[in-house]
Amino acid sequence: MIITISRQFGSGGRTVGKEVADNLGLKCYDSEIIAKMAEESGFSKDYIEENAENTGTAAWIGSGSYHFDLNYMPSNSDRMWAAQCSVIRNIAKEGPCVIVGRCADYILHDEVPCLRVYIHADEAWRARRIVEVYGETPIDPMRRIREKDKRRASYYRIYTDQKFGDARNFDLSLNSGTFGIETCAEIVSTLYRKLNGQEE
Amino acid sequence: MIITISRQFGSGGRTVGKEVADNLGLKCYDSEIIAKMAEESGFSKDYIEENAENTGTAAWIGSGSYHFDLNYMPSNSDRMWAAQCSVIRNIAKEGPCVIVGRCADYILHDEVPCLRVYIHADEAWRARRIVEVYGETPIDPMRRIREKDKRRASYYRIYTDQKFGDARNFDLSLNSGTFGIETCAEIVSTLYRKLNGQEE
Repeated sequence: MIITISRQFGSGGRTVGKEVADNLGLKCYDSEIIAKMAEESGFSKDYIEENAENTGTAAWIGSGSYHFDLNYMPSNSDRMWAAQCSVIRNIAKEGPCVIVGRCADYILHDEVPCLRVYIHADEAWRARRIVEVYGETPIDPMRRIREKDKRRASYYRIYTDQKFGDARNFDLSLNSGTFGIETCAEIVSTLYRKLNGQEE
Repeated sequence: MIITISRQFGSGGRTVGKEVADNLGLKCYDSEIIAKMAEESGFSKDYIEENAENTGTAAWIGSGSYHFDLNYMPSNSDRMWAAQCSVIRNIAKEGPCVIVGRCADYILHDEVPCLRVYIHADEAWRARRIVEVYGETPIDPMRRIREKDKRRASYYRIYTDQKFGDARNFDLSLNSGTFGIETCAEIVSTLYRKLNGQEE
């Protein structure tokens, strides 16, 4: 069984994923997915990191391919999505692990047994946290959060046809602002053990 | 701190609420709220039970009050909503307890410290469960579920201006089909104790 952690920007979902993996002795896939997507697609890691959650960047327009029927040309986003699906399916084949982000919940659902987790928190809590973790930037943290939320929601809607943040797409949703990151990781680990018949 | 349990029809949220209350030695409010709403509003218990989640029933049309400006006449739904808010605020004043349904999460949020829980499950799981718990009816269980979901979502949207089932409105959302009702109750109890500084 694979644990997928979907998360709001700034909610600490990535840290929850790492702690869960540590607790359970599993591998945690996060930035490694970007490296694998780069190998698979030919795009650079930097380009993927910058653009993978954009929709409709259509950066290939002007690449000389405008003689082809636009309707049949996959955009760079589409190509990255295809690489992402393939990378995540390959990771899943290797056995139990934790996968953070990248719509793994959607890609693997109905294919592999998954514990689908969603970590979220109130805007104010996340705004404080991103300043602590990533430092100040000229852009107001609340604005950074809202832009990222918007982009992620639109990306998720386009590629999965689901509303990001709907509890019904997950087995477990936790507010990290209410419980703290460590408790969230404990709960996920406890439930994973329970589902796998490994009582504590 | 008050525990509010919002739930999808057939998800076992009511049973989770009762078990949590038992575990923690708290009172669980459920059908009692209907009785209190009846006292407060003058509507009968049966009428409230049947109609409290309807929106815009406008049953008062034909009651002889059609000379008044329709815009200023609260509908029966509005009157029941007012009674519901008042009953739930009064219950909350009496101290820690578990409240199942009735938008208590929305009514009490920002007023009282709450642990807001949402219990949901896949349609097929809930369809099986409602037949087990409530018995067969001439209506297909899947249809019963979908109609109830639709009605509840619309009620929630009108009175709270929120999307029912959005994880971000809750501290904790659990799929009872994945974990089972008993485990859901354990998790809620554990987290409540933790938030109140009562480690197990």
